[in-house]
Amino acid sequence: MFADPVEQELFNEISQIPCLDCHTHIDPLRPTASTLDDLLGYHYFTELAHAVGMPAWLARVASQECTRAVLAHFRRFDNHVAAGWLIELLRLWFDWDGEDVSERDAEQLWALAETRLKRPDWAEHVWQRTRLRCLFLTNDFDDSLQGFDNARYVPCLRTDELVFRLEDRSVRERLYRASGVAVADLSTFRQAMHALCARFVERGAKACAVSLPPDFVPVQPENMGSLGTPGERLWLIAETCRTFQVPFDLMLGVYRRVYAHGVPQGMDLFDQRVSLYAYAPLFNAFPEVSFCVSILSSSLNQELTSYAWIFPNVYACGHWWYSNVPASIENDLRLRLQAAPRHKIIGYYSDAYKLEFILPKFNMYRRVLARVLAQDFVRGRHWTTSRTLALARDLLWNNPQRLFALDKCGTG
Amino acid sequence: MFADPVEQELFNEISQIPCLDCHTHIDPLRPTASTLDDLLGYHYFTELAHAVGMPAWLARVASQECTRAVLAHFRRFDNHVAAGWLIELLRLWFDWDGEDVSERDAEQLWALAETRLKRPDWAEHVWQRTRLRCLFLTNDFDDSLQGFDNARYVPCLRTDELVFRLEDRSVRERLYRASGVAVADLSTFRQAMHALCARFVERGAKACAVSLPPDFVPVQPENMGSLGTPGERLWLIAETCRTFQVPFDLMLGVYRRVYAHGVPQGMDLFDQRVSLYAYAPLFNAFPEVSFCVSILSSSLNQELTSYAWIFPNVYACGHWWYSNVPASIENDLRLRLQAAPRHKIIGYYSDAYKLEFILPKFNMYRRVLARVLAQDFVRGRHWTTSRTLALARDLLWNNPQRLFALDKCGTG
Amino acid sequence: MFADPVEQELFNEISQIPCLDCHTHIDPLRPTASTLDDLLGYHYFTELAHAVGMPAWLARVASQECTRAVLAHFRRFDNHVAAGWLIELLRLWFDWDGEDVSERDAEQLWALAETRLKRPDWAEHVWQRTRLRCLFLTNDFDDSLQGFDNARYVPCLRTDELVFRLEDRSVRERLYRASGVAVADLSTFRQAMHALCARFVERGAKACAVSLPPDFVPVQPENMGSLGTPGERLWLIAETCRTFQVPFDLMLGVYRRVYAHGVPQGMDLFDQRVSLYAYAPLFNAFPEVSFCVSILSSSLNQELTSYAWIFPNVYACGHWWYSNVPASIENDLRLRLQAAPRHKIIGYYSDAYKLEFILPKFNMYRRVLARVLAQDFVRGRHWTTSRTLALARDLLWNNPQRLFALDKCGTG
Repeated sequence: MFADPVEQELFNEISQIPCLDCHTHIDPLRPTASTLDDLLGYHYFTELAHAVGMPAWLARVASQECTRAVLAHFRRFDNHVAAGWLIELLRLWFDWDGEDVSERDAEQLWALAETRLKRPDWAEHVWQRTRLRCLFLTNDFDDSLQGFDNARYVPCLRTDELVFRLEDRSVRERLYRASGVAVADLSTFRQAMHALCARFVERGAKACAVSLPPDFVPVQPENMGSLGTPGERLWLIAETCRTFQVPFDLMLGVYRRVYAHGVPQGMDLFDQRVSLYAYAPLFNAFPEVSFCVSILSSSLNQELTSYAWIFPNVYACGHWWYSNVPASIENDLRLRLQAAPRHKIIGYYSDAYKLEFILPKFNMYRRVLARVLAQDFVRGRHWTTSRTLALARDLLWNNPQRLFALDKCGTG
Repeated sequence: MFADPVEQELFNEISQIPCLDCHTHIDPLRPTASTLDDLLGYHYFTELAHAVGMPAWLARVASQECTRAVLAHFRRFDNHVAAGWLIELLRLWFDWDGEDVSERDAEQLWALAETRLKRPDWAEHVWQRTRLRCLFLTNDFDDSLQGFDNARYVPCLRTDELVFRLEDRSVRERLYRASGVAVADLSTFRQAMHALCARFVERGAKACAVSLPPDFVPVQPENMGSLGTPGERLWLIAETCRTFQVPFDLMLGVYRRVYAHGVPQGMDLFDQRVSLYAYAPLFNAFPEVSFCVSILSSSLNQELTSYAWIFPNVYACGHWWYSNVPASIENDLRLRLQAAPRHKIIGYYSDAYKLEFILPKFNMYRRVLARVLAQDFVRGRHWTTSRTLALARDLLWNNPQRLFALDKCGTG
Repeated sequence: MFADPVEQELFNEISQIPCLDCHTHIDPLRPTASTLDDLLGYHYFTELAHAVGMPAWLARVASQECTRAVLAHFRRFDNHVAAGWLIELLRLWFDWDGEDVSERDAEQLWALAETRLKRPDWAEHVWQRTRLRCLFLTNDFDDSLQGFDNARYVPCLRTDELVFRLEDRSVRERLYRASGVAVADLSTFRQAMHALCARFVERGAKACAVSLPPDFVPVQPENMGSLGTPGERLWLIAETCRTFQVPFDLMLGVYRRVYAHGVPQGMDLFDQRVSLYAYAPLFNAFPEVSFCVSILSSSLNQELTSYAWIFPNVYACGHWWYSNVPASIENDLRLRLQAAPRHKIIGYYSDAYKLEFILPKFNMYRRVLARVLAQDFVRGRHWTTSRTLALARDLLWNNPQRLFALDKCGTG
């Protein structure tokens, strides 16, 4: 698989490290796909198919018609890394032996998927083979958080609606039902956040998270007598993180609905003109809060690495979305490994919606990690294989376990 | 030539793909150089010679004195990629066997050039050996478009003056003569654009093009009763592209005359703080128009790749000017090949002023393409050579032929 | 040491080129460390140790306690390039044979350092083995500039205080004592600068220098009747450089004290949104002044390379601070070597505080330079080894010697 035996050995060993996946969109009640459509309906495929000619309306619901259309357009985007995930997924989970797929494979794939996905032990099979120990959910603030094993499926409080849509009466009503607090201003918002976070932590949550646009500016509230601004509400959520001693995942740089006619979840983009400088007051004000920072634009990677280099509470985390591509990962990871302290790097998360995607995505990352470690540490700095693997283990296991206090996830 | 046999094989095969050059400044009535001075007077050489000591006034006209001065300064910039083009050009077209040139070579080179360039079949010889099928011109809006074979020399309506200098009476007078419309406001500008574009398309034009500064913002006109702003005029040109079903080439990010004392065409630079976000309204408003986007600053490459990833009408096109350097091409191309659909990438254009430069420039690109394909597709994804070459063929032939409807360019 | 024999040969030969170090913070009266604490107290180590848990107060003074704490945290950041410098430094100067250090090594290292550092010929030993010919100091404007050999220790007038703190009465009082001019407005500031620069040049100074924030804008003064703005004062310093024919080192892009609770010198960061476009008026206004430009954010590298490509008076200089990491150096250097004239690149400076760091830092650079030259020139362009080494020699010796008129530094 690798031309270079050092990379091959590192990849093999890295693949033995169990998987802590600290950001996903998995539904714990339906963690795996039910049909092939759940897999081919993933926005990575529908948006690519749409970008090369598939009408967007076909992607509104996962369906056989959509699956067939994605396959019909596949050869127009089979160079894309997401096409690589699909081929690897089909090989891993369905014993597919092709290098490629097309519309002609639709029946066979659908039938194959039917037999596998309906097996009663399917989710457990995928879980074990992926060597998963736990994964993080993305929970709405009023999620019931019930019906699943929170040692495996770790709740995470997603706060985008609270930061950006608190002006909506419907959001405040849901917040009242979830927290028992009628929010009318920042003071009552702070109380509501406290109540929400208490409930989440009590049910096993290990982090708060939010995604923010490129021009976002966190602001310390001056006056608690109104609903404030998104920047002020973010500040109060950081306060809550401090109170409950949970890290705050900041996912930086996304503009929503930029492409107005896109498929669902295929409308968002970014602006590369983004900086962490606006976040320095937040990092300074909350030294007790660990900020686990993901970036959408690689243009921010040198800043993120440098902030993690000197700020004790800033962590460089994963490779998100448009940067979750080997070319970007390799550049970004190489710099982090040379210039951020090893204790400050959270290696990877899958961002997956279905368990079947976690292993192909982690394997992509592991291949890049093996290459960078082989070049820069084994060859460049003459580290032994075991010392090098200990570095990989920090990124993939020790750091997320320590940072998120994942004491119930078992041993690595 | 290559240490790696896979790269060598890919390069050899890629070199067999005929050449569609979708952006040049060739004069179809004088497509090749007349003397050595036409080659050495290229702004890449005069600006580099000036940057290391040659007085700028020497470059005002191509002349033996300028040629001699460029050669006298050559060893101060022979590391530059443009110096590599020159050496390859001399070897390809003049059988030069040196690795280097200097002032001492001036007489010999001048004499060599004289004998070759004056041959009656010279342009045809260069055309054939370059495997050219067609190339795009850069035509002023009032160009006569006559006296050449528009299957080979494809007109392209360059609109910079209309966008930026419509306030000048002299531009409006030329526009009146070219279109028959007396432009007094945006309504009449729209009529003039329609007339211009009709004439261009009738004479074989396949695209409109414009170069824009980093801070440019396209704007939908609100009020048609004045000459409007550059952003509004651009919007109306996009409308015209929609009417005539021609792609719109956007060349993003150049500031003109930044270096005030520079040689001709050696004064322009850029600001890396540039984003496609300002163009999203334009891309959304004209889903029927293909926007073929070139970037001057590599800082924009991840955005461009991502916009091509989800917007059906955005194409990532070539490697322009300050980014037309192997180090930048390799980074930019690698990401495009991993993260933009293969149907959305237009591989390369030469931007050349004389036919003799097209082959050396395309060869530079082909070497980088061969390397990236060998590393990321043959080795990284285990693609066969023939599958990999089909990807190269999309970039260099199929995509530009389809996008620009080049039905008269022959087969690849 | 290198897997590739071409890289190895280039590295060996490059290591023979004597060292001109055109930016350091060496104290010429105490150029080497007195104890191990002087080495481990370097802000690169204290800030990294702090970023992974060491309290900041421990770093306020270099001390055994601080040294011990740095060593105790070392394994949390031993991946960092600065950790590599330390190991190489210990091997080079103390014959340390470990691959790693920890708290357990503190006594042994302290004892080793004691015996070496107290040797009467220590500074001369380090100087010779580093093949140093001269190094630049960083002098306050009121530095006495006495007590050292200015052929070895070349004064450089650092002007940050004059640009940014001239409003402080204490600065103007020091300026009065240093220049004999009571500064009340830009006119008297210009006189004071003239007097300062005359004194510096008379004592062997070869450059003025300043570090500037990302949002800095140089401005031509309109009215000399007040103390003006930082942008205006910079302009007048450029005037002084013109008068005295010394280059002006611009170190671009640092925000000071971003991390408020950091260790000394471990508080500064940057904003990647920075451009040279704001400097074009300065470069245009002073064609006789050589601007030797360092950048903190790699995002600026393509601009810097392109400005050096066409502006005769702009030089691309070294790899500063957060960009002084092999991953960044490799990308930045590769582009400079392909796209800036070889005469316009100043290869490297150490930025060191103690002589012992110069050799490990230069060796890091030499390894990257050897790799880039092997790949892009020996292999990519088929240059001979000797031609390639002449290029390296331009970067490391000829260019700084010529640019800074270092006629007393001996031959390379």
